[in-house]
Amino acid sequence: MKNAFYAQSGGVTAVINASASGVIETARKHPDKIGTVYAGENGIIGALTENLIDTSVETDADIAALTHTPSGAFGSCRYKMKSLEANRAEYERLIEIFKAHNIGYFFYNGGGDSADTCLKVSQLSESMGYPIQAIHIPKTVDNDLPVTDNCPGFGSVAKYIAVSTMEASFDVASMAATSTKIFVLEVMGRHAGWIAAAGGLVDSSIPVVILFPEIDFNEGKFLKKVDKNVKEFGYCTIVVSEGTKWPDGKFLAEQGTRDDFGHAQLGGAAPVVANIVKKALGYKFHWAVADYLQRSARHLASNSDVEQAYALGRAAVEMALDGKNSIMPSIVRLSNNPYKWEIGYGELKDIANVEKKMPENYISDDGFSITKSCREYLLPLIEGENYPPYNNGLPDYVVMQKSKVKKKLPPFEV
Amino acid sequence: MKNAFYAQSGGVTAVINASASGVIETARKHPDKIGTVYAGENGIIGALTENLIDTSVETDADIAALTHTPSGAFGSCRYKMKSLEANRAEYERLIEIFKAHNIGYFFYNGGGDSADTCLKVSQLSESMGYPIQAIHIPKTVDNDLPVTDNCPGFGSVAKYIAVSTMEASFDVASMAATSTKIFVLEVMGRHAGWIAAAGGLVDSSIPVVILFPEIDFNEGKFLKKVDKNVKEFGYCTIVVSEGTKWPDGKFLAEQGTRDDFGHAQLGGAAPVVANIVKKALGYKFHWAVADYLQRSARHLASNSDVEQAYALGRAAVEMALDGKNSIMPSIVRLSNNPYKWEIGYGELKDIANVEKKMPENYISDDGFSITKSCREYLLPLIEGENYPPYNNGLPDYVVMQKSKVKKKLPPFEV
Repeated sequence: MKNAFYAQSGGVTAVINASASGVIETARKHPDKIGTVYAGENGIIGALTENLIDTSVETDADIAALTHTPSGAFGSCRYKMKSLEANRAEYERLIEIFKAHNIGYFFYNGGGDSADTCLKVSQLSESMGYPIQAIHIPKTVDNDLPVTDNCPGFGSVAKYIAVSTMEASFDVASMAATSTKIFVLEVMGRHAGWIAAAGGLVDSSIPVVILFPEIDFNEGKFLKKVDKNVKEFGYCTIVVSEGTKWPDGKFLAEQGTRDDFGHAQLGGAAPVVANIVKKALGYKFHWAVADYLQRSARHLASNSDVEQAYALGRAAVEMALDGKNSIMPSIVRLSNNPYKWEIGYGELKDIANVEKKMPENYISDDGFSITKSCREYLLPLIEGENYPPYNNGLPDYVVMQKSKVKKKLPPFEV
Repeated sequence: MKNAFYAQSGGVTAVINASASGVIETARKHPDKIGTVYAGENGIIGALTENLIDTSVETDADIAALTHTPSGAFGSCRYKMKSLEANRAEYERLIEIFKAHNIGYFFYNGGGDSADTCLKVSQLSESMGYPIQAIHIPKTVDNDLPVTDNCPGFGSVAKYIAVSTMEASFDVASMAATSTKIFVLEVMGRHAGWIAAAGGLVDSSIPVVILFPEIDFNEGKFLKKVDKNVKEFGYCTIVVSEGTKWPDGKFLAEQGTRDDFGHAQLGGAAPVVANIVKKALGYKFHWAVADYLQRSARHLASNSDVEQAYALGRAAVEMALDGKNSIMPSIVRLSNNPYKWEIGYGELKDIANVEKKMPENYISDDGFSITKSCREYLLPLIEGENYPPYNNGLPDYVVMQKSKVKKKLPPFEV
């Protein structure tokens, strides 16, 4: 009987732990087929460095509580494994670790990069003659994975952004006659406007201008639109993606600092946009940058998101037990209204390194709002509320014990 | 039988409409004593310009729905009436309006400035021989009114900040080993650290450094504290008040722009603090500015806050019917655990222009966190959840019909 390995990858979300719960609870239901589920401490790095967490020590209640706890309970990391050619040693190390701990199932919970890693592990296990069933579990607030209708994590961010846009707009509407007329909310999404699009889910009586990363920032056209809204509605709400760019390709948000990968560190598109409006039109503004608040807001999670995150974790284990390998369980949409979905799956070779863009027909012709098709796609994803329990006024989120498994192999540098 | 006038003043909150609901529902229960409740469109400016909203047109269901709707449903304004000496004409205009519309009750829902206006209206009505019972209903996210134990609006902001601090900290904790180690959340509160203090309500296992407006920013001491947290916990969350100042009195957040009153327009302490940490310690950071999101977040309102806001609106009407004048109903705390409170009241002369500061013993000796006393004071205020109904994934907030009353007087310039 084989053990399983589970790891969280990349930026965490409000519901990735619900997938973890789905994996672990389902594995526990099959003690005759799956031994222990080991979790990587801080993601795949935990496997490479042999820092494995023994999840069997965690109580059933705590594993259940993961469904209402945001963040990555076992730790995650932004560690993209290089290509097989460039760093074969790392992949071989993974197989060695799996071998040493009798691991036959590899559940990797992340975005496009981790789907790629998952695929390579599966390929290498074949060529190295040590059988591993590698199953990828989708997770990304960016909603940019192919094959699946949507990605767990996105629905809850979308709900947070839609609700926040609505609430701040109500606020500004009531002050606009004598005070603030412009509210700018900056949201995540460096490459795709999925998250920004969620700002367009509010009622059409609320004037929202969206700045998408897909559309070059056209200052003149933008100011005209904003001014028109202020004159018609008394105020204007602007939802700007951190990835919005000037026509020359430079981010509005660029701060001059870069992260470890050399990407420009973003944050600050909102004040830039607010000041552009102030300078040209003179309107008083306020701005907010939601940053991590939006992706960790489990208090406002979408129920369909939580249910799907859990279901995908569960399906990953069931598919593994069914002998599947090198696949990712996915969400298949059956109908919009009422919203119906089921679990399907795709082959990792069709998923790894493929980025799903927002369809062109989801953005209005003027480039500042979403279309009816986009709204029909998004609405089911923010459907339903799924509140965590509270204790003393604060959510009762769980923290894992993280009991470490005894190491069996020599150290390995990452 | 006299009519009543109700107006919302200053920055709006998640629960000021609950007070409005309390006023209107209670008045409707006494049709033999109170005629129509007129609301000022955009606050007191609506009275001065004779833009009165006839609330009798609004359905009972819509008035009830105000208890779960953030913002100012009738419009608010930042319009501070000058002193009686400087602008007696404005006060006389108010009395003329009240006379023209047979208004005998003046309910003013706001902070310190509106308590002052309320007091003056009451004094002038006496000297002008037109009887007005002026009752102030407390509202301010800043929690800075005297006499009352706390102010409606504050508890919900505090809950939002505490929950957001907790959720973002969970997020950073799971990424810190290989990525972001510093998260900075900027919160409101230009003069007092009440809101920033709420960041200290999270469990002590979460390392939070708070920067209060009451404490001069000491860069060296701050960096030492942050570094210690990162070394001990792996990460550090920083909650910075928009009002935090350098020792020379300049705001960290100062942008160089000023609002209509000549106050420096704030926003941007978070990126300043984040960059100070990055430059000195090299840690990767993320930052968020909550701005209006925090005060409009009815989706996360504190139940005690909602209940108190409603109760104070109701009490205002009941006290008026009881013949009271020139007072403000207040919250009297009876016990912390279990939290018990009752309605009391104070005289406007003791409230107008008095600012309640945070007690010194609420801030820890090192200046970066809250004390046990502060925690005991704050915890009951974020107690309980009070969720709005949802429809299609979004809160079902109500918008008033705002039917205007026919004008009877000549125009008046404000």
